Amino acid sequence: MALVVQKYGGSSLENADRIKRVAERIVATRKAGHDVVVVCSAMGDTTDELLDLAKQVNPVPPEREMDMLLTAGERISNSLVAMAISALGAEARSFSGSQAGVITTSAHGNARIIDVTPGRVRTALDEGKIVLVAGFQGVSQDTKDITTLGRGGSDTTAVALAAALKADVCEIYTDVDGVYSADPRIVPDARKLDAVTYEEMLEMAASGAKVLMLRCVEYGRRYGVRIHVRSSYSTKPGTIVSGSVEDLNVEQAMITGVAHDRSEAKVTVTGVPDQAGVAARIFRTIADAEIDIDMVLQNVSSTDSGKTDITFTLSKSNGPAAVASLEKIRGGLGFGPVLYDDHVGKVSLVGAGMRSHPGVTATFCEALAEAGVNIEIINTSEIRISVLIRDTQLDDAVKAIHTAFDLGGDEEAVVYAGSGR
Amino acid sequence: MALVVQKYGGSSLENADRIKRVAERIVATRKAGHDVVVVCSAMGDTTDELLDLAKQVNPVPPEREMDMLLTAGERISNSLVAMAISALGAEARSFSGSQAGVITTSAHGNARIIDVTPGRVRTALDEGKIVLVAGFQGVSQDTKDITTLGRGGSDTTAVALAAALKADVCEIYTDVDGVYSADPRIVPDARKLDAVTYEEMLEMAASGAKVLMLRCVEYGRRYGVRIHVRSSYSTKPGTIVSGSVEDLNVEQAMITGVAHDRSEAKVTVTGVPDQAGVAARIFRTIADAEIDIDMVLQNVSSTDSGKTDITFTLSKSNGPAAVASLEKIRGGLGFGPVLYDDHVGKVSLVGAGMRSHPGVTATFCEALAEAGVNIEIINTSEIRISVLIRDTQLDDAVKAIHTAFDLGGDEEAVVYAGSGR
Repeated sequence: MALVVQKYGGSSLENADRIKRVAERIVATRKAGHDVVVVCSAMGDTTDELLDLAKQVNPVPPEREMDMLLTAGERISNSLVAMAISALGAEARSFSGSQAGVITTSAHGNARIIDVTPGRVRTALDEGKIVLVAGFQGVSQDTKDITTLGRGGSDTTAVALAAALKADVCEIYTDVDGVYSADPRIVPDARKLDAVTYEEMLEMAASGAKVLMLRCVEYGRRYGVRIHVRSSYSTKPGTIVSGSVEDLNVEQAMITGVAHDRSEAKVTVTGVPDQAGVAARIFRTIADAEIDIDMVLQNVSSTDSGKTDITFTLSKSNGPAAVASLEKIRGGLGFGPVLYDDHVGKVSLVGAGMRSHPGVTATFCEALAEAGVNIEIINTSEIRISVLIRDTQLDDAVKAIHTAFDLGGDEEAVVYAGSGR
Repeated sequence: MALVVQKYGGSSLENADRIKRVAERIVATRKAGHDVVVVCSAMGDTTDELLDLAKQVNPVPPEREMDMLLTAGERISNSLVAMAISALGAEARSFSGSQAGVITTSAHGNARIIDVTPGRVRTALDEGKIVLVAGFQGVSQDTKDITTLGRGGSDTTAVALAAALKADVCEIYTDVDGVYSADPRIVPDARKLDAVTYEEMLEMAASGAKVLMLRCVEYGRRYGVRIHVRSSYSTKPGTIVSGSVEDLNVEQAMITGVAHDRSEAKVTVTGVPDQAGVAARIFRTIADAEIDIDMVLQNVSSTDSGKTDITFTLSKSNGPAAVASLEKIRGGLGFGPVLYDDHVGKVSLVGAGMRSHPGVTATFCEALAEAGVNIEIINTSEIRISVLIRDTQLDDAVKAIHTAFDLGGDEEAVVYAGSGR
C-alpha cells in the first residue's frame, strides 16, 4: 500500500461531469489499496471571474483581500470533489490550506511555503478517509492571514504535502500526457519523456516549458519527492521527475528536449559610460523595482569612445516598469537612449548529456544557421544552451534543433486544450 | 464614539455597484467617528448557484462538505466589500467566521453559536481598521470543522459579535424600511414600527414575519443587544428592537402588528385510541424524525367511540417525512388514516398590549367572522393570538385584523424586491 498525492488542475475540474470523472479516478486509486491525498485547483474560469469582480470594485485591490477572495475558488472545487467521491460510496474529507497546515510567508499573492504540519490530514488518512486539500493557499506564520502561493501554487501545495507526508509519489494531473521533448503544437513528432532528473526539469521549466512550474520542481528536488506528470484524460503513464544529474552515468545522460518562451522582452541601454560601477547601478535599479532579469549581454566597447551597450531580457509584463525606472537614472549616469524590443523569443536545449558530449553548442548553432535564424544573445549553463532570436523565427528554430538532435518519437503527440493553475 | 455592528444581506450585495454603495455607507459611519464591524451575507444568487453545483455532483451531499462549499459565498462578498472600502481610502480587514472567533456546535448546516472570541477583530479595531466578518459561518468547537448557522445565520453572526464586542448597536440592513405592523405587500397602509420589545419581535418572527430570524432575536434578547432593523436603500431610521415587555407601563403597551405564514401544513391523525400515552407516542415519533411542530389541537371525543383526532401543524418541507413516519407506527398504535393538508395559512396578532386589555381575542375573532373567515385551530400566548385558516383567505384575514385594531399609518409603505440570508 502506497501513499499517493494527486493534484488536479482547473481544466480537469471545469464542470460537474469532469469533477465526477476525477472522483472516479480518485476512488479507483483508493480501491487499489492506496492512501490518497488530493489537491485541487479552482474550477475552470472561477479565478478569472473572481479577478474580474475584484477589478470592478477596486482597480488596485489590496493583496491581503485578494488572497481571501481567490482562495474561495479552491474551497469550492475541493468540497465539490469531496461530494462527488462521497456519491461513489467512498469517504472523503476536505481541508482548506490552513486546516491542512500549509504555513507560508506573509507575501500575499506570492507566498512561499515555510512548513507543512499535516496533522489533521494524517489523522483523516488513518481513519481510512480520502483527504482533499485546497491548493494554492496557506496561512501566514506571522499574521495568521490567508495567503496564496502565486502561479503554479497548487502544484507546489501537492509536492509540499507529499514531502511532509513522505508520500511515495506526487501525481500531477494535467491536460498533456507528460513532459515532451518539445511543444507538440510546434513539433508534431515530439517525444514524451519517460523520466527526467530534477535539474533537467528545472532548466526546462525556467526555459518556458509550462507543464510544471519552477517552484514546485525546486521543492520536489529539495525533499526528493518523486513527481509523476500525467494526463487526467488517460491512464497511460506520463513522465517521472526524480533523481539527480549527478547520479546518471554517461550512457544514461542524454539530451532532454527543446523549450521555448515567448514571454520575454529585450531592453538595451545604449551609450553606457565604460566605468566601474555603472553597470552595477543599472542592475541595482532594476532589482529595486523587484524585476527579475534573465539573459544579460554586455558588448565590449567597439571603439575608443569609452561607451558600451548593455542588453538584458525580462518578462514582457515588467517591460514598461523597467524602462521607466531606467529613464529616472539616465541623466545621473549619463547613458543614451533605452531601447525596448518585445518581438523576441527564446529557444533552449536542455539535457544532462551535454556535460559529457562536446560539440553540442556547435551542432545547436549550425542547426539555427541552416534554418536562417540569427542569434542575438546566447547564454548557457552546464546542462542548457539558450539563445534569443526574433519571435517570428521561434517555431522554425524549435523544429530545427529538435531535428538536429534527433529527439523525435514514432508516435504523434496528443494535444488537449486548456490549462490549470 | 460608538461601536457599531452592521449586517448587509445578499440583495444589498448583489453586484459590484451595490457593493460600492454599501462600502460608501460603511465608510461614512467610520468617518462619523464610530468603530465599525461589518457582517456580510453571500452575494445575491451565489448560494443558489453553489447549491446547484453540489446537487449536480451528489444528490445528497455530505453536510460537512456542504458547509465547506457554502462558506465560500460569504468569503467572496466579504473580501469584495473590503476591497471597495479600500478604494474609498479607508482601511479594512476581512476575517472568516473562524478567524473572527465564531465558535459553534458541530451540527453542520444548522450549527449554534457557543461562544464568540473576537480577539483578532478587537485588535484590528484598535488599529483603526474597519473590520469585516463573513456571516453565516463558524468553526466547530469539537471537530474544528467549518460550520454554517442555517437560515438567518448572518443576522445571528452580527448580533453575536455585537454581544461579544459590547457594541452600542447592531444594525441589520435589509430591503425593507423596518418592522411593519403587517406585510406592506398585503396591507398598503401598514405602519413602520419605531420600536418593539424582544418578546414582541420573537412572537412576530415565530409567526412568519421574515424581517428578522427567530434565533437572532433570541440571541439579542439574551445578551441585551440593541438591534436596529433598517433599509440599505435609505438613511431613514428603521425599527429598534430592545427592552422587555415587563418594563413597559400600561400606556406604552400596544398591539404590535399582524404576522402571517404560508409555509405550514396541517396533519390530522384520525381515529386515535383515547388512551393515555398514545398521543405521546405520536409526538415522540415526530420528534425522533427531528421535525418541529407548531400548533396542536386534540379534539375531545365527540361520541363514546373511544377515539379522537389529533391535528398539528408543521413546516410544509417536513410534511412528507412526518406522514411517512406516522404511517410506520399506524398499525402498532391502531389509529386511522393520516390526513395531510397544505392549503392552510396562519395569521397572528402580536402585542404586549393584549396582556392588559381584555377583549382582544373577541375583537380578533369578530373581525375574522365579518370577513367570512373560518378558524380551524386557535393558539395563544400571553402576547399573541394565532389562528389556522384556509390559505386562500390569508390576505383578507390580515387586512381585516389590521383594520380592526386600527394599526394603519398615514404613509404608504415602501416595498422593495429581493431578500437576503
